[in-house]
Amino acid sequence: MEWTPNRLYFGADYNPEQWPRESWSSDIRQMQDLGVNMVTLGVFSWALLEPREGMYEFGWLDEIVELLHDGGIRIDMATATASTPAWLTEAYPSVAAINREGVRLAHGGRQHYSPSSQVYREKSLQLVEQMASRYAKHPALEMWHVNNELGCHTPHCHGDEAAERFRQWLKKRYASVEQLNARWHTKFWSQNYGSFEEVNPPRLTAAGTFSNPGHFQDFMHFSSDQLLELFVGERDTIRQIDDTHPITTNFMSMRHISAMDYWKWAREVDFISTDHYAEADNPDAHVELAFEADLTRGFAGGKPWLLMEHSPAAVNWQPRNAPKDSDEILRHAMSHIARGSNGVMFFQFKQSQGGSERFHTAMVPHIGEDSRVYRSMKELGSRVAELDALSSRATAPAEVAMVLDYHSWWALQQPNLPSVDLDYPNTLHSWYATAHDLGISVDFIDPDSPLERWRKYKAVLLPMLHIVDEARFTTIDAYVEGGGHILTSFFSGVADSSLAVHLGGYGGSLLSTTCGVRVEEFVPLREGESLELSNGWSASLWSEKAEPLTAEVIARYSTSGVSSSSAAVSKNTRGSGEAWYVGTQLDRDSQLVLMEQFVAPLSIERDGNSLLELVRRGDQRVVINHARESADCNGVEVPGGAVTWR
Amino acid sequence: MEWTPNRLYFGADYNPEQWPRESWSSDIRQMQDLGVNMVTLGVFSWALLEPREGMYEFGWLDEIVELLHDGGIRIDMATATASTPAWLTEAYPSVAAINREGVRLAHGGRQHYSPSSQVYREKSLQLVEQMASRYAKHPALEMWHVNNELGCHTPHCHGDEAAERFRQWLKKRYASVEQLNARWHTKFWSQNYGSFEEVNPPRLTAAGTFSNPGHFQDFMHFSSDQLLELFVGERDTIRQIDDTHPITTNFMSMRHISAMDYWKWAREVDFISTDHYAEADNPDAHVELAFEADLTRGFAGGKPWLLMEHSPAAVNWQPRNAPKDSDEILRHAMSHIARGSNGVMFFQFKQSQGGSERFHTAMVPHIGEDSRVYRSMKELGSRVAELDALSSRATAPAEVAMVLDYHSWWALQQPNLPSVDLDYPNTLHSWYATAHDLGISVDFIDPDSPLERWRKYKAVLLPMLHIVDEARFTTIDAYVEGGGHILTSFFSGVADSSLAVHLGGYGGSLLSTTCGVRVEEFVPLREGESLELSNGWSASLWSEKAEPLTAEVIARYSTSGVSSSSAAVSKNTRGSGEAWYVGTQLDRDSQLVLMEQFVAPLSIERDGNSLLELVRRGDQRVVINHARESADCNGVEVPGGAVTWR
Amino acid sequence: MEWTPNRLYFGADYNPEQWPRESWSSDIRQMQDLGVNMVTLGVFSWALLEPREGMYEFGWLDEIVELLHDGGIRIDMATATASTPAWLTEAYPSVAAINREGVRLAHGGRQHYSPSSQVYREKSLQLVEQMASRYAKHPALEMWHVNNELGCHTPHCHGDEAAERFRQWLKKRYASVEQLNARWHTKFWSQNYGSFEEVNPPRLTAAGTFSNPGHFQDFMHFSSDQLLELFVGERDTIRQIDDTHPITTNFMSMRHISAMDYWKWAREVDFISTDHYAEADNPDAHVELAFEADLTRGFAGGKPWLLMEHSPAAVNWQPRNAPKDSDEILRHAMSHIARGSNGVMFFQFKQSQGGSERFHTAMVPHIGEDSRVYRSMKELGSRVAELDALSSRATAPAEVAMVLDYHSWWALQQPNLPSVDLDYPNTLHSWYATAHDLGISVDFIDPDSPLERWRKYKAVLLPMLHIVDEARFTTIDAYVEGGGHILTSFFSGVADSSLAVHLGGYGGSLLSTTCGVRVEEFVPLREGESLELSNGWSASLWSEKAEPLTAEVIARYSTSGVSSSSAAVSKNTRGSGEAWYVGTQLDRDSQLVLMEQFVAPLSIERDGNSLLELVRRGDQRVVINHARESADCNGVEVPGGAVTWR
Repeated sequence: MEWTPNRLYFGADYNPEQWPRESWSSDIRQMQDLGVNMVTLGVFSWALLEPREGMYEFGWLDEIVELLHDGGIRIDMATATASTPAWLTEAYPSVAAINREGVRLAHGGRQHYSPSSQVYREKSLQLVEQMASRYAKHPALEMWHVNNELGCHTPHCHGDEAAERFRQWLKKRYASVEQLNARWHTKFWSQNYGSFEEVNPPRLTAAGTFSNPGHFQDFMHFSSDQLLELFVGERDTIRQIDDTHPITTNFMSMRHISAMDYWKWAREVDFISTDHYAEADNPDAHVELAFEADLTRGFAGGKPWLLMEHSPAAVNWQPRNAPKDSDEILRHAMSHIARGSNGVMFFQFKQSQGGSERFHTAMVPHIGEDSRVYRSMKELGSRVAELDALSSRATAPAEVAMVLDYHSWWALQQPNLPSVDLDYPNTLHSWYATAHDLGISVDFIDPDSPLERWRKYKAVLLPMLHIVDEARFTTIDAYVEGGGHILTSFFSGVADSSLAVHLGGYGGSLLSTTCGVRVEEFVPLREGESLELSNGWSASLWSEKAEPLTAEVIARYSTSGVSSSSAAVSKNTRGSGEAWYVGTQLDRDSQLVLMEQFVAPLSIERDGNSLLELVRRGDQRVVINHARESADCNGVEVPGGAVTWR
Repeated sequence: MEWTPNRLYFGADYNPEQWPRESWSSDIRQMQDLGVNMVTLGVFSWALLEPREGMYEFGWLDEIVELLHDGGIRIDMATATASTPAWLTEAYPSVAAINREGVRLAHGGRQHYSPSSQVYREKSLQLVEQMASRYAKHPALEMWHVNNELGCHTPHCHGDEAAERFRQWLKKRYASVEQLNARWHTKFWSQNYGSFEEVNPPRLTAAGTFSNPGHFQDFMHFSSDQLLELFVGERDTIRQIDDTHPITTNFMSMRHISAMDYWKWAREVDFISTDHYAEADNPDAHVELAFEADLTRGFAGGKPWLLMEHSPAAVNWQPRNAPKDSDEILRHAMSHIARGSNGVMFFQFKQSQGGSERFHTAMVPHIGEDSRVYRSMKELGSRVAELDALSSRATAPAEVAMVLDYHSWWALQQPNLPSVDLDYPNTLHSWYATAHDLGISVDFIDPDSPLERWRKYKAVLLPMLHIVDEARFTTIDAYVEGGGHILTSFFSGVADSSLAVHLGGYGGSLLSTTCGVRVEEFVPLREGESLELSNGWSASLWSEKAEPLTAEVIARYSTSGVSSSSAAVSKNTRGSGEAWYVGTQLDRDSQLVLMEQFVAPLSIERDGNSLLELVRRGDQRVVINHARESADCNGVEVPGGAVTWR
Repeated sequence: MEWTPNRLYFGADYNPEQWPRESWSSDIRQMQDLGVNMVTLGVFSWALLEPREGMYEFGWLDEIVELLHDGGIRIDMATATASTPAWLTEAYPSVAAINREGVRLAHGGRQHYSPSSQVYREKSLQLVEQMASRYAKHPALEMWHVNNELGCHTPHCHGDEAAERFRQWLKKRYASVEQLNARWHTKFWSQNYGSFEEVNPPRLTAAGTFSNPGHFQDFMHFSSDQLLELFVGERDTIRQIDDTHPITTNFMSMRHISAMDYWKWAREVDFISTDHYAEADNPDAHVELAFEADLTRGFAGGKPWLLMEHSPAAVNWQPRNAPKDSDEILRHAMSHIARGSNGVMFFQFKQSQGGSERFHTAMVPHIGEDSRVYRSMKELGSRVAELDALSSRATAPAEVAMVLDYHSWWALQQPNLPSVDLDYPNTLHSWYATAHDLGISVDFIDPDSPLERWRKYKAVLLPMLHIVDEARFTTIDAYVEGGGHILTSFFSGVADSSLAVHLGGYGGSLLSTTCGVRVEEFVPLREGESLELSNGWSASLWSEKAEPLTAEVIARYSTSGVSSSSAAVSKNTRGSGEAWYVGTQLDRDSQLVLMEQFVAPLSIERDGNSLLELVRRGDQRVVINHARESADCNGVEVPGGAVTWR
């Protein structure tokens, strides 16, 4: 279903059940005062909507829906399945997930249900059917919000019901148990399975050992698919009843969230929505935000998406939860909008008085209207309203893309790699920050994108792309042959999708054929060890014994030991393209120089720097000055901390 | 029952069952030599007193009781219920507690029983009845010692039997499950309960989530009450048989012990006894000791109490267990006596040859009589004997009080607060140390003390008093109105007893009305971050967006960001009193200056400093010089490391 | 059975089941090319040899055995019992071990079976019988390799079946439960057992408590014995069928392996074989290697042994797995051979393409023959072949011995010792490094060796020998009386074998009688604290209150506190020998000086230094230069990094 909103959304999760009914009308007056035009209802309402099994009580929800409608507030209706009522896990203990150590999770937090529970699936779909039937035709309904942050807390269940579903999933994936054995290389460590029935989720193994890598990898994949099944089940239930409203579920584009393969998920939603919470302790939080917003833009394929949650000021779950200052609130919101978000939604409208998130800030803080946060929200509301013309407007595509691969991410979460310092998300963030510092806009793409998608970019960055199977290689190599430029790094191209290593030189064909480098051995560095390259660059974490096959060497290691004098950085001309390879982790300055050299021949449009962001959406150009001092941007002065649209 | 001892006690836990009978008489000769006048018997004797279910063997205990009696040693008789025999948990597995992850604890350590076990309660009371019947009339009996360190290792049980008792407790606390839901704010996260039967102890929740705060808080409260029920059960059993001897149980006044609300417990014992173990790694161990002894004095309401255990030299359970030097042994003992202890008892008389505490020192160390420790004990024994006139003598009340609140302590042990650096016990210890450095004596009071108790003090310190409900506020405000001075800090007054936040400004009425400050937002600092205040003070950990309502600002934050220029320290005149508020954690020097300013108008008696302690008890004044160098104390020279009574 | 190999072995674990049959002949060609003369077969083959219960498939193994035989490669045949097939734990869940928290381990790693499982024992012996019957007469068979790395991952099982066997073991050890109670000192903490039936493995105890020390110690001993029973069971099964081939099992002589008392095990194998993996992060890895090789030489009693596994270049399970450089590969191999290894075997022949150890290097790396590692292996193969004359040749005995005691090691793994910094293996390694730096060769001996064994040495080092019972004392004292010199350290001689403390002065008779020192109190130092001794030496971790009885004081503590001015280092002349005692942990330089003084009167042969090793085997003398620079060795120049045999 096409999503064509005609305005930018501004609002928040609204949980009126937390408050007495008498306060609801004043809540709505505050929404109007702030410029809120949509709220998300029902996220955590199951226990109130179905207080006893099969007994539904929609009265209170009907009432608030009418009040909102009367107040001109649109509704993003959640299906209320995100957290289960106490009676459900009491009556059906199997609903609760079981962790790797065999402990069944308890009621009292949230999202403790097993994604594989049949009872959960049935009961949740009954609720969804009730919700859809009741509100599909309501004029205040703007969109459906399936579940909430699927997989946030319990993406994996190791119990017997999950085991049975895992076996079904494996049977679909592998023609036979022999094929499973071959792909997982189970002949080692006597792990060979005689039948699918012997396979379980990867549970606690002996101390100092760890589950088979293919087993682990497939379980991660299966778990992502199980959660996606929950979405699809709810979506299809709604769609049978309502074929007019778009259906989404809020992704979580954040550095610590990796359990869901959102590239696959993106194909199932009517539009992408996501939650993003800035890192309060990170002095470059705005760069992290830009990364995640660009990634979300990637999921959306350049089309508008919706920031479904972010924090008005501070969250409550990071170690030290400093609030954003008022300029920062605006800059963060605008950074999302500039990157394609069709508005900005917060969690939540009114700060909880009690419960686990009472110290998570809201549009209306504990102290009420006479507050910095409320005033900031109001200012933001009016700024967002001014940008309504952006609605449904696509963002400008970048000239450079970066590949983010959930499967490689999973692979790098396993133990027993050459070094514990291998860190997939931090590597990507570091490369992104380098591009950002240089004012280079970056799109994110699915590693399994077809060649024509790659060809939209002058250059593609492939940091630590561990898994490169035959199909990926074919695409990448054709891209380079046809004139594309790539920059890839150590530990890329090493394995197939079951984590079997490509023999004959690390990195397989990606390195030997495309990059023209022969990597013989990995030489991880000691903790804190740094090394110099022959051209003066500094590096850490990793080195290699490697030699060029056809590549030109840019820098060699000047250390002693196995990697001594080996090729560290190289460039290979292939067809009409170029493939650069960096076999170590450069420090920030060296990485900037490398990136400069890499993009030098490509006439990439560059604008801004680490503190001055320039982003284009539609015909608008947003300038965000993250510095305290005013900055000159193409002759126009942008005050410190400010945002301008032009 | 009134406790009117006529001498100071000097002795230890004595576990004769560890040693062959042949050595018992020489043990008693050593007691006499050391000046021991009382020992605690039977603490860990259940397995020997009831070697099989219902089969009692008191012969060996009778024998040692007679020997002690003949030797003139009084007996503090423990009820022997502190650790269960192997047969009990073998025959009744439900006796053993179950942890949050669902693991049942095993025999082989100590105190693994569930405080909620019905079988434990029945079996332990049968033993108590036997003990009481047998020894109530014995002339050597001095007092009853119920159980031992109740709650030291297993204050919480998460099993089904505990769950049932928890539900009963909740039913008494809340008129209905609706009221429970309202107080716990369960409407958030779909946690609402349909009936009490759905409520369990807070068990393992999904990763990254956590139990409902009200649920957690009530479970802590319930658990403290469960343990107190154990005490009351034993006490009442004894009292039915023996109405002449006082009954106590040894509290544990230490920084790492928080599970028991000792203010509530204090009302149930005939007199307060406590265990205190100094922190070997802490260079200011004597200040920590003073804090805990003053706290115990608070539990005792100024009346004498008894230090039931402390270590002769070193313990075995801290990371690095350095022994106290000989002067320190004396200073520590005298510091307790000066603060109201009616003697000093040690753990234990004779160092175990085997078992888990073999490296815990004793009055008679492994090497025997010819030893520093033995000689120190003997010297101490004679010093204690000289002070017999102090017996039953009250301590001098202080002019300043500090509030310690177990409920706020529990609240601050929850996750998802604004900052992980919030530390309740360390904050109190830091404030106490400031007063101590200034030579200001401090009493501790129950936060729920009636107004007349508050009025005994010129000033009351309320550091981080998170929970302030209506009743507490009324008392505090009336105290200030009537001329009292208070000093309170950030994160005080924030919540009610179920941890619901007071709306309309953090700190509720305590801050807005009493302190005249409006706190809008919390602004926790980064790890290691420090800031300057406008008056030159230094601070860390916390700042706030705050403005005075009626208060006078003493210092403002000079940082950038949300708390920039906000009121950091302020003073409010209210009625004839003053309410000071400090919204950050001052460094040691700044805190000293603040405290000086706070007490300046109050003519508080001050004497001593961080290394020179002066404490009054009855008509005696003890001077303790913790420095190596001699010090002048009002014209009298006190040698380095020495203690004098005058 | 006497082991008299007539050549040095060179080879590896070979797991052909990981590879297609088509590649087997080229594997064998590579073996021939590299000089491989023996491979270990079958280590992880159970799942393929017995794909269903009782259904054996030896065809593939027969085939590779023939191919190897045809290729002239000898076979070390593993019994394939090291890792269980999936069907076994599915059909018999009791086979999987249960950890201390009660969690049953899962299939999917390796070695998760319980050493106490009756089903495991039966099924594994059935397989062993099949293997032995099939291959005993095969002309390619060189030796039997029982199981593999017994106890590597799951040395302990806490389940009910283990409990029952533990009770049987205890009944053999103790005449009665009363004796067990006495030895364990269970009268403390009410731990007394009424019958053996009440005793379980040490399972999870209450937080902050810990199991009884005697209980823990016996469980460690029992667990070592259980694993040894597995070896003996397999060995006897083979021996009934094959009385001509030697039978071994590969020990793991490494700093982190302590669960097996290899002194006891050494008496059961036909010859000693061991696995050793160098510490990639350790700049003194070669010293650690020398320690472990000398220790293995000790197990072998000076007779040849076999390095059954080491890594060709890098492992995959340390935090950062840097490969050895080419010289290092050679040096490490030669260091083992010089110390008595009858060849060098690797794990494994051909690097796994998939599975958990895919990043563990092999003789044939992922990249194949054209590689540094392959070439290094080939060079090493030819160097090893040149040394065939060494075969069966004994090593030269040292003049100095060091005692390594597994029971003391276990004791020091317990909690609640005087200091958490007590570290048994690191202490031994530090002392060994001191001797190594001084060019002093060191033998290792069993602490329970008879006196005649001790008398072979001019001096014996006894660092931190915590457990010294009457028999040990008698031997040590007689050794000294008869002219032996010993050097022992703090925390030695403290306890008997059940961890009961010797009364009357720490260290018991070892310290008072042999060393002439009276240790009254332990005075552990704070973290990071260091102290000076009166003679200028520096020390850390530990000090004591101690005085000489008959000893001469070498150095005293110059600190304040309890250990102030106490004897820190002393020397006692006893009979015609000397007993030195060091009551603290000296820094590296001070320890060198101490060791110099200790050996000064003994005319110990010394050669080499920390980077230049000289070792003798048979009539050969190997010089290993671990430095990068060339070194002069008795007038002959040894190039940097090189090894020479003379």
